[in-house]
Amino acid sequence: MNIELLKNIEKTVTITSSERLLITTLFKEKTYKKGEYFLKEGNICKYVGFITKGMVRYFVNVDGEEKNYGFGQENEYVSNYESFIPQNISKRNIQFLEDAELLLISHKDLERFYAEVLNGERFGRIIVGQLFIQGLQDLDSFYSDSPEIRYKKFVNDHPDLLQRIPQYHIASYIGVKPQSLSRIRKRNL
Amino acid sequence: MNIELLKNIEKTVTITSSERLLITTLFKEKTYKKGEYFLKEGNICKYVGFITKGMVRYFVNVDGEEKNYGFGQENEYVSNYESFIPQNISKRNIQFLEDAELLLISHKDLERFYAEVLNGERFGRIIVGQLFIQGLQDLDSFYSDSPEIRYKKFVNDHPDLLQRIPQYHIASYIGVKPQSLSRIRKRNL
Repeated sequence: MNIELLKNIEKTVTITSSERLLITTLFKEKTYKKGEYFLKEGNICKYVGFITKGMVRYFVNVDGEEKNYGFGQENEYVSNYESFIPQNISKRNIQFLEDAELLLISHKDLERFYAEVLNGERFGRIIVGQLFIQGLQDLDSFYSDSPEIRYKKFVNDHPDLLQRIPQYHIASYIGVKPQSLSRIRKRNL
Repeated sequence: MNIELLKNIEKTVTITSSERLLITTLFKEKTYKKGEYFLKEGNICKYVGFITKGMVRYFVNVDGEEKNYGFGQENEYVSNYESFIPQNISKRNIQFLEDAELLLISHKDLERFYAEVLNGERFGRIIVGQLFIQGLQDLDSFYSDSPEIRYKKFVNDHPDLLQRIPQYHIASYIGVKPQSLSRIRKRNL
């Protein structure tokens, strides 16, 4: 039984002990190696994952260039909901930046979660609402914010990830070449 | 009792006759004049509306210029969820393009809807999921698509609105000056 996942759910709704057991059977453990993909564009996103160890980057291919638009880490959910919810083909990629351990729930088992956990629908409604707002803000920032502002937001949102993510991935996230990143870093020490 | 609203909800979930009555009391009728605002930037979005008559445009101010990023019409919900869900200040504007009639539900009454309608949470979870995907696609298109592609999508998504919306609002939506719109229209007759 993964305590972190249950704790995470219980931050939003209360669940009974039999529901805790059910949830434990619905989420399956899976390990990934650094460099493997959670999701490749052209495929359908089949799972929502809960990261218990490791880190991912979210990226899109724009004119042959990989552009990072987000990162995920421990105690966060990982998915491309735009593909997962309607089970459509994904235009986005999710790749592991470290060896990782996840708890995965399939589309079908998430329907069971909604049907059999009393507060399951409420949990889904609140989480999807949070993801919705986060997703819009991320996309707005991706297209509109200057590299300087994106760097400051990154440091603010993920202070612990600065040391874990290769510089060129941070550069791609804020939208500059790696050599420009070091200048921005110096200005924002 | 507004039949269209109930029909809309019943497309997603089943509701009982006593829930139908409750829903009718939770949504309040309000009329607006053409040019009035549903929401102005700097304010908090207090309601979700269901449009029974009329039309709105969604826009942001970019460097002093109003840029339309969406339209809403009859039998659609209208809100800025990014502001409504957390009750934060809105960066976006929603304005009526015609005299309009809406059914409004407040944040507090929506909580009652979720608490007292058996399938209320399920309805919320599914609708927020749909809005989530729509919102991401709209924002992606707003920033990435060419005017030509945006024109084609607009005609495809809202064939009936071409005659109802002033040309300069369509031009703003697809991201060109009004004189360029007529060239695009001629190429896409």
